[in-house]
Amino acid sequence: MFEVLKTEGRARRGIFTCPHGTVQTPVFMNVGTQGAIKGAVSAHDLKEIGCQVELSNTYHLHLRPGDEVVRQMGGLHRFMDWDGPMLTDSGGFQVFSLSGLRKITEEGVTFASHIDGRRIFMGPEESMAIQSNLGSDIAMAFDECIENPSPYDYVEHSCGRTVRWLERCLAEHQRLNALPGCVNPGQMLFGINQGGTYADLRVRHMEQIAQLPCDGFAIGGLAVGEPTQVMYDIIDAVEPHMPADKPRYLMGVGTPSNIIEAVARGVDFFDCVMPARNARHGKLYTWRGTINIKNEKYKLDPGPIDRECRCPACQSFSRAYLRHLITAGEMLYMRLAVLHNLFFYNELMARIRQALDEGTFQEFRRTYSGLLDRPCQDS
Amino acid sequence: MFEVLKTEGRARRGIFTCPHGTVQTPVFMNVGTQGAIKGAVSAHDLKEIGCQVELSNTYHLHLRPGDEVVRQMGGLHRFMDWDGPMLTDSGGFQVFSLSGLRKITEEGVTFASHIDGRRIFMGPEESMAIQSNLGSDIAMAFDECIENPSPYDYVEHSCGRTVRWLERCLAEHQRLNALPGCVNPGQMLFGINQGGTYADLRVRHMEQIAQLPCDGFAIGGLAVGEPTQVMYDIIDAVEPHMPADKPRYLMGVGTPSNIIEAVARGVDFFDCVMPARNARHGKLYTWRGTINIKNEKYKLDPGPIDRECRCPACQSFSRAYLRHLITAGEMLYMRLAVLHNLFFYNELMARIRQALDEGTFQEFRRTYSGLLDRPCQDS
Repeated sequence: MFEVLKTEGRARRGIFTCPHGTVQTPVFMNVGTQGAIKGAVSAHDLKEIGCQVELSNTYHLHLRPGDEVVRQMGGLHRFMDWDGPMLTDSGGFQVFSLSGLRKITEEGVTFASHIDGRRIFMGPEESMAIQSNLGSDIAMAFDECIENPSPYDYVEHSCGRTVRWLERCLAEHQRLNALPGCVNPGQMLFGINQGGTYADLRVRHMEQIAQLPCDGFAIGGLAVGEPTQVMYDIIDAVEPHMPADKPRYLMGVGTPSNIIEAVARGVDFFDCVMPARNARHGKLYTWRGTINIKNEKYKLDPGPIDRECRCPACQSFSRAYLRHLITAGEMLYMRLAVLHNLFFYNELMARIRQALDEGTFQEFRRTYSGLLDRPCQDS
Repeated sequence: MFEVLKTEGRARRGIFTCPHGTVQTPVFMNVGTQGAIKGAVSAHDLKEIGCQVELSNTYHLHLRPGDEVVRQMGGLHRFMDWDGPMLTDSGGFQVFSLSGLRKITEEGVTFASHIDGRRIFMGPEESMAIQSNLGSDIAMAFDECIENPSPYDYVEHSCGRTVRWLERCLAEHQRLNALPGCVNPGQMLFGINQGGTYADLRVRHMEQIAQLPCDGFAIGGLAVGEPTQVMYDIIDAVEPHMPADKPRYLMGVGTPSNIIEAVARGVDFFDCVMPARNARHGKLYTWRGTINIKNEKYKLDPGPIDRECRCPACQSFSRAYLRHLITAGEMLYMRLAVLHNLFFYNELMARIRQALDEGTFQEFRRTYSGLLDRPCQDS
């Protein structure tokens, strides 16, 4: 269930309802790949940093501990003790990005596990079965993630198959939800638009999958190497063809500015590993740009990462302490830095929603787009 | 200020008061070597797991970020945001165990930093200056930690020097506490008994330092390779010569059973890295013995580590989830496992105190000494 409450230009302020609760959109989903958030952050911690939707990875959980284990433990919600909305990806992206050896046929993909090299087959039905075992609120359709750029003919061929795979996903998903003992019978399914960097293929593919009874639609296969402007151009081309009454999810994006720009183009859902990865490398977000906490100039800085921030790290710890922790290799650094950066992203979305509520999103966009990605000039 | 409230045999139930609060004894101090607890555990978390005294390491903090940095940040309490009692060791143990190259003279020790090989001199005055900058509530005297066994003549010679070093520590400590701008003018100083495994040297040394105006006395240089029974015998020999009205601290000890046995022999303070190190390797404590969470048999175990435990990990997460986290290399495992093992140790002390309060400590000792160190037989 999705309701658009308000619009400003193409930007949308909405509410999405799924079995584990309602989600205020635009929203940034927080990534817990293996059923835990990198940096010693638990599902409980996510509550404290304003996370609305947790996202886990089908590929990783299928390999370890195995989705059958998770199902027997009552599903991923109970396993990781998260009672809010949850999305699982389809495994497609990881199959194509993490696995070495792989072979694609109409049936699906055969690939080698990145853990032990074991050969595994995954197709639309397998992906649906795994996500059903995990019991997420939103399952993602199984698709092929191609590289950018790929040859036009290959992308066209791949798009056709992705439509057929989506039809198989929908049929299997419906069947699994109706089985007795299904972990989450109210699980929804989002389709994924592909088409590389070819606007005409993107539009044609979107028009085809828009006919299918998906609960939402994602734009996949972007932010994988193409220039940022190309990404924006593709969103501009595809968005008019996405059903207005369904949520739109831009997968794996991105920087704060990417998110602001995509919201301006009508996107509702986001996810990205960037805030956690940047935290790990010392890059922390503030409302005046990024800082590198490893910098010598913070050695005696008694202030928090960002004076405006209300995250658990900024409430209690100084830049000097965080710099000490990362320099000394203390794991506590990772936890505090990840909590900060994820809080920042969640707060970014809250401020975007507030601006949309107040009709000041374009002003917000002018102030912060660009600025938030650049190094802070005055601290 | 130390008051013995009650005794049972030689075991003591007491209250110790220092600038940052009162401590119920017997107590286990939780180790935060570099101003953070291993496993992404913050000072705030320590509050939630029943920690009464935080312990940090002078050697590590002197090297990184530097005790002068900590002083300028308002002392270690403010730096790490811990407002409870805090003890710092003298740096002596690390100088002897971590540093390669080292040279001991009457003045002190010249050693090479384990970080960058830089040559550093530390003597009684330097150790006092560093601990004064850190601003802990309890400073430890600078001593030489010899190996066990060491030749009798060498130990005797070393003991004489340790007495002279303690006298210098006391003088310097008094001078520093009186300086304007001192971080913690109420800082106390504990002396340390040495003497290796030679009971006569231990007793002679203890008799000498007992004459000096220390706020407490530690037994150092045990649990460094000698058999457990030798450790108990040394405590038995030294304890009658320790002032009854001062707290007694057995440094770096030990297993739950070691602690119970040392309490029975009149010890009040403990510290050890063992609970955190064991957590890291998958060894978790329960009230029916230890378990190795990596064991295949926990793959589908929906129960907590220990049904009796009220720690943050046991409140929410299953053995199956923890096994998954350690197998998958998730940092969250470390945090939950360390929280559990430290909670267990703090709870062990709480139960020891309760038993002493109720006059049932000998019964407690019969039930749990031995049992808690052994693998759990029924889960």
